[in-house]
Amino acid sequence: MVKSPYKELEKYFRRIGALNEVLGILNWDMAVVMPSGAAENRARQIAEINLIIHEILNEPEIKDLLAEAESIPISDKLMKANLAEMKRMYVHSTAMDASLVSALTETSTNCEMCWREARSENNFSGIKKNFEYLLSLVREKAACKADALDCSPYDSLINEFEPGIKQSEIDILFDDLLRILPDIYHRTLERQKRVPSPVHPKGPFSIESQRKLGVQMMKRLGFDFDHGRLDVSLHPFCGGSPGDIRITTRYYEDDFTQGLMGVMHETGHALYESNLPKKWRLQPVGQARGMTIHESQSLLIEMQICRSTEFIVFAAPLMRAAFGGHESLWEVDNIASLTRRVIPNYIRVDADEVTYPFHVILRYELEKALIKGDLLVSDIPSAWNSGIKDFLGITPPDDGKGCLQDIHWFSGAFGYFPTYTLGALAAAQMAATIRHQNPDAQELISKGDFKVFTDWCARNIHAKASFLGTNDILVEATGHSLGTSDFHKHLESRYLA
Amino acid sequence: MVKSPYKELEKYFRRIGALNEVLGILNWDMAVVMPSGAAENRARQIAEINLIIHEILNEPEIKDLLAEAESIPISDKLMKANLAEMKRMYVHSTAMDASLVSALTETSTNCEMCWREARSENNFSGIKKNFEYLLSLVREKAACKADALDCSPYDSLINEFEPGIKQSEIDILFDDLLRILPDIYHRTLERQKRVPSPVHPKGPFSIESQRKLGVQMMKRLGFDFDHGRLDVSLHPFCGGSPGDIRITTRYYEDDFTQGLMGVMHETGHALYESNLPKKWRLQPVGQARGMTIHESQSLLIEMQICRSTEFIVFAAPLMRAAFGGHESLWEVDNIASLTRRVIPNYIRVDADEVTYPFHVILRYELEKALIKGDLLVSDIPSAWNSGIKDFLGITPPDDGKGCLQDIHWFSGAFGYFPTYTLGALAAAQMAATIRHQNPDAQELISKGDFKVFTDWCARNIHAKASFLGTNDILVEATGHSLGTSDFHKHLESRYLA
Repeated sequence: MVKSPYKELEKYFRRIGALNEVLGILNWDMAVVMPSGAAENRARQIAEINLIIHEILNEPEIKDLLAEAESIPISDKLMKANLAEMKRMYVHSTAMDASLVSALTETSTNCEMCWREARSENNFSGIKKNFEYLLSLVREKAACKADALDCSPYDSLINEFEPGIKQSEIDILFDDLLRILPDIYHRTLERQKRVPSPVHPKGPFSIESQRKLGVQMMKRLGFDFDHGRLDVSLHPFCGGSPGDIRITTRYYEDDFTQGLMGVMHETGHALYESNLPKKWRLQPVGQARGMTIHESQSLLIEMQICRSTEFIVFAAPLMRAAFGGHESLWEVDNIASLTRRVIPNYIRVDADEVTYPFHVILRYELEKALIKGDLLVSDIPSAWNSGIKDFLGITPPDDGKGCLQDIHWFSGAFGYFPTYTLGALAAAQMAATIRHQNPDAQELISKGDFKVFTDWCARNIHAKASFLGTNDILVEATGHSLGTSDFHKHLESRYLA
Repeated sequence: MVKSPYKELEKYFRRIGALNEVLGILNWDMAVVMPSGAAENRARQIAEINLIIHEILNEPEIKDLLAEAESIPISDKLMKANLAEMKRMYVHSTAMDASLVSALTETSTNCEMCWREARSENNFSGIKKNFEYLLSLVREKAACKADALDCSPYDSLINEFEPGIKQSEIDILFDDLLRILPDIYHRTLERQKRVPSPVHPKGPFSIESQRKLGVQMMKRLGFDFDHGRLDVSLHPFCGGSPGDIRITTRYYEDDFTQGLMGVMHETGHALYESNLPKKWRLQPVGQARGMTIHESQSLLIEMQICRSTEFIVFAAPLMRAAFGGHESLWEVDNIASLTRRVIPNYIRVDADEVTYPFHVILRYELEKALIKGDLLVSDIPSAWNSGIKDFLGITPPDDGKGCLQDIHWFSGAFGYFPTYTLGALAAAQMAATIRHQNPDAQELISKGDFKVFTDWCARNIHAKASFLGTNDILVEATGHSLGTSDFHKHLESRYLA
């Protein structure tokens, strides 16, 4: 019997799938539990696994099998979509030679470890040399991939995280936001001045109580602790792999909201991963569609659900039970106003949803310039500081609270930042659809019942994995492709109604 | 220029070294932090990495390079020893085909997870089917390796853990012990009857205080927390890799000695790993020599140092500071007698050094019979119980405290058990040498100074890695090959003097 080239490919990609799960654990371990002195070893381990994936994709047989498989009509839509994703993965991998892959993974892991030090010491110059080398490798990668994908270098980088959206489309969406947001921002600040400031429940909030409350919320949202964990890391993330999902947050003893909202945000990512179709778990098409959809899932939970008044009605008594303190502090209006306060913040991950896009758009503009060669590494701190000043009217006191705050660039991730705000737009669009289709959805939140939202996402988003493109998923689920209008309406209604 | 076949081999083995480090992390993660539902995924991940190592070793080029390298005289002794270790690894790997390797790793991981349940439920029948299948695969492996190594099937399994010692030698050493030990055991029990029982300091001993005391001791012994961690697992172990050493223990709130001695024991393993020569870290010859030497290092710390009166002189005030309670409880005589109490125990890892060898020798006899086919899986519980009854005069109340207590068989490890007691013999032999060469070594322990011991080991044992065979290391370091006489003298002097 003649072997099916498609089925042969599935075997190879199943192996790659398992190796990607291994990377998920190595990366989680590095961020959460690894002793600092093991960084160099870990860089080598991760480089080795990446190299093996690269070698598998570069075996001559893969090229032949892909060509054969593409020459045979495939009637099964899912298999067809999987073949397309295999091809995409193949193109991304074969665009670079092994030495570049190896140098990139080793350098990015080293630079990331160096960033941890530089950030804690507020010392940009400590990372400059490392980062310049990393950037040169990233630009080399972008050039290779631009050739292979027939697009611009920066588009080729976006494509790694978000294959469905191009720079030209992002430019339009972000220009739109820059027209809308400054006005909303300033009107919100004005409005806040006219109402009494919320009262902060007084800490310290014990880490253990914060953790327990987080776990309670995760369970409510459907997080399965038999297949996942909650831990602490410097930068919250959702890692591991479907079936073993590791989310992290960070706790502050004087402010419980950040740790809790971190948990809710990452739980949104976790639900997406855990609901991906089991049957396709190790195949390319079974993976999450891209970072726009991924971020929409975390923001749907964090911003659309958990910062709504209905959620606070549900959560305030639980917060009070967890932390104690006078009843009046835990009144719904007070907590709602606390979690929805718009304040210019140096730190992106602590920013509210009105000012957050400014952080993202600034990074986006700077990274486009870095990749193009229009911005020097040594000019990053001043470019960052002046951008933040222009957008938010504040100047970061040091680089740790400025350009060094985010891990992405320093671990080699460029083209990632725009997806945060694209995700916010998508989340608003999905939430508007859910509320339109289910008039009682929002009210149920006040009873701690999130199933209308989570079930809708499981059915309309998670189950789609990578069978469709980003915009096709959105069109099928919400009726139209990605835009700014639902986000705009959401901000108007939440902050200015 | 012609490529050196030896140097080419080093490149391959460097990759295998990095993959073995990855396995170290995956295994640690599985035992310490992994959620239970991820077991199947993890089995597949570990199987995939093992398969890749197997594939590398089975590449036709390796066979050719080994043949070429062996045909050229190598003047460098270290390189020559490395080549010999490469060959050993190659023979172990190529003796089995890929499907057997894959079935073994997947089945052993599954069986290990199943064992966790069966043990907690005291239910041997719950694991019987899984274990019968695993045993059949292990016997298949033993047959393949016996062919390749030209030895008996059981010797081929010992060879995985302890390449320097054969069943025929172990039989002689263990027969010796069976002549010596029953008499020592009974005389010690008699003697204990005549002296007042030690008073247990009253718990509960908080886990946090136990942990802190353990960390304090680890630092004293030279454990480097920049390159390692201390965690909790069901069965204490030393994992990870040199440069990132992960030891575990388990704590009991009503008895701090077990958790603490677990820490000291695993720290002995950790020091060995961390002192292996850095230059050879990823090469076969740079690895620990075998489990006899490994276990000698943990027992040198735990038994030879930490259960000595001098150590208690040093540690008792620290214990008192950690846990509080009346001064009289922390008197040296009381604690010394507490940590050196000989009591027949169902549980091997909780056993004292007099009764411990009985557990090992029983497992050794049973596993020889299992591999030979003279013992059925279904007969294990009764065989175990009657053996323990014969040796120690007690009958385990259930299988959890009987044949199910140890992870080894159920994760596929046969031929491992004898090394525990071989290690105890080696530790006594080394300690006797150290004390003979350094008359003040023992006295320094009472000041918390362990450097005479740890430096001697670093120089005479750790630095030797796998450059020499087990007995050659012992002969160079102690003047004679492995025997029972120093262990015999040690027990006489500690328990009966």
